[in-house]
Amino acid sequence: MTNRLLEALSISHPIIQAPMAGGITTAELVTAVSEAGGLGMIGAGYLNAESTRHEIEEVKAGTDKPFGINLFVPSPYQEEKDVIHRAQLSLQPFQEKLGVSGAKSEFISYEQTLKVFLDQVKIVIEEQVPVCSFTFGIPSPDVIQSLKQAGTYTIGTATTLSEAMAIEAVGMDAVVLQGSEAGGHRGNFMAGVEQSMIGLMALIPQTVDKVQIPVIAAGGIMDRRGVLAAQCLGAQAAQLGTAFLTCKESGANILHKQAILEGQQEDKTTLTRAFSGKAARGIENDFIRDMRNVEQKLPDFPIQNTLTKSIRSAAAQNSDRNMMSLWCGQNPNLAEPITAEELMHKLVDEA
Amino acid sequence: MTNRLLEALSISHPIIQAPMAGGITTAELVTAVSEAGGLGMIGAGYLNAESTRHEIEEVKAGTDKPFGINLFVPSPYQEEKDVIHRAQLSLQPFQEKLGVSGAKSEFISYEQTLKVFLDQVKIVIEEQVPVCSFTFGIPSPDVIQSLKQAGTYTIGTATTLSEAMAIEAVGMDAVVLQGSEAGGHRGNFMAGVEQSMIGLMALIPQTVDKVQIPVIAAGGIMDRRGVLAAQCLGAQAAQLGTAFLTCKESGANILHKQAILEGQQEDKTTLTRAFSGKAARGIENDFIRDMRNVEQKLPDFPIQNTLTKSIRSAAAQNSDRNMMSLWCGQNPNLAEPITAEELMHKLVDEA
Repeated sequence: MTNRLLEALSISHPIIQAPMAGGITTAELVTAVSEAGGLGMIGAGYLNAESTRHEIEEVKAGTDKPFGINLFVPSPYQEEKDVIHRAQLSLQPFQEKLGVSGAKSEFISYEQTLKVFLDQVKIVIEEQVPVCSFTFGIPSPDVIQSLKQAGTYTIGTATTLSEAMAIEAVGMDAVVLQGSEAGGHRGNFMAGVEQSMIGLMALIPQTVDKVQIPVIAAGGIMDRRGVLAAQCLGAQAAQLGTAFLTCKESGANILHKQAILEGQQEDKTTLTRAFSGKAARGIENDFIRDMRNVEQKLPDFPIQNTLTKSIRSAAAQNSDRNMMSLWCGQNPNLAEPITAEELMHKLVDEA
Repeated sequence: MTNRLLEALSISHPIIQAPMAGGITTAELVTAVSEAGGLGMIGAGYLNAESTRHEIEEVKAGTDKPFGINLFVPSPYQEEKDVIHRAQLSLQPFQEKLGVSGAKSEFISYEQTLKVFLDQVKIVIEEQVPVCSFTFGIPSPDVIQSLKQAGTYTIGTATTLSEAMAIEAVGMDAVVLQGSEAGGHRGNFMAGVEQSMIGLMALIPQTVDKVQIPVIAAGGIMDRRGVLAAQCLGAQAAQLGTAFLTCKESGANILHKQAILEGQQEDKTTLTRAFSGKAARGIENDFIRDMRNVEQKLPDFPIQNTLTKSIRSAAAQNSDRNMMSLWCGQNPNLAEPITAEELMHKLVDEA
């Protein structure tokens, strides 16, 4: 069986390192994965234009092999004063505990967010990045066309069959299927969060039967067994986040890595809107538990994300993992503190 | 690689037909699966002692091959008058719409439920049923010992690694891992419902690494691809519910079969407590939607199940699928109205 995706991407192994935003995907990590024959991906979701270009150039300096970048597709959102005010009140106890001042109440507007996104796209084109994937929606036809004309391979992110079909319909080249097992933010953009929670065992076959573009499986895959299973179900590659997050080259906070690496945690991840306003899976801690009652009434992404920024930073500085976002998929038990090259070997060597 | 499970069960193929209670697993269905080299299973969860024996004898009359039975392990529950009264009020609009009288308010007690369960175990032993699986908990050591002494192969049902380890620790022979993809009732008995929602891609590898007994994968598996994927992940067999539910020999209501078979439904299943008091996955309909606001305050299983009985029966008689329980896993798209023998061929033939 030929693998169209590997041919199109010019990579040796069906392994994509998930583009984890927020400083986790260092140039070292991306480079190491690409050098080992997989596809390293820059998580540029929270970067401004300048940092986006910087990250791309760092990776280019480290490898001649193909790599990719992921961008967050902005969605319109409102600044609702009373919703924001209530959220600020609910965050006060945490701020007091950490000794930080109140959350700032100046937010980047949707229009500004969109401008950053379009600047990022321009940079991706100028820098001739081989692969560009998108999360949280479908970019405009103009964006997709300009990337494709520049020779960039475009990948959408779907959580349901309908989302995958929509991604194919706008002409993207491939689709990441994010199963309910996945750590970090849910990529749903048509389905509601609950309806987006489909396990890969069910999601992959029903999707590959209906879409023609290559499918990449993401969620809970940690080792060779998962890669093979995803391929049995019809995926052409696997995208792994948590497994790469604990690698030595990853920029994840040491407390984040430790939280994933320690002990038996199979039932310790949960979905929460509390950190960012968008549902995401992570290891349950005090912040998630204490915010449980109000989380459905919090402002939308990215406003809530801005509101919790001082808490997350101070918690990291104070080594208090109970107020950090500890994104993690449903199988932390198999995570290891190894190098990306070692992980790649474990993923692709024959058993 | 030898398959210890197939050897122990004396079956040819790694396919178990899920024991769907409530009349779905007719003797014809169970017999057809066992005759085709899989393991047919009687869903005896709602049967009394007499019907349990009758079903076993019917299956024995149809096949000499191994088959199994599933029992619900009773858990203590309380009759809380005010909770029941509020539930009755919330059900009145549906009863009025269907023209049925109010739900009855006499409930079988936990002690009676336990007596039925122990009678069922006695019958399983007397009838020398080859395989007995359990859902909703772990039976007492006495029960397990007496079954094992009688030569019956015992299987527990787990939704998390911890539950699987507990099942192994009491000496059961194998464990069904129920992924979040699965239709029907959640089998969680230590984890809460939310914590029990782990996709098979994550659940199987972390469990087979820690338990020695054979693991059977259940949830969202509909065809050969799923069976192979489950095996890649470390399972020794797959247990399929929805795929067998739409088979010609299944006793599922025709409306239930139609609801599964029609069209693209990948994001139409949901979890609900509204029908039985225990979380279960089915196709969303008016009853589930209308009960959404009160479902967390409904009485426990089996009291709520008794309360909704008249509604479910009348809805079935009136061909009103909007008030029936339409249990279904996360991949209805691959269901087909074929015979069990045809399905078995599709599951085990080489591609």
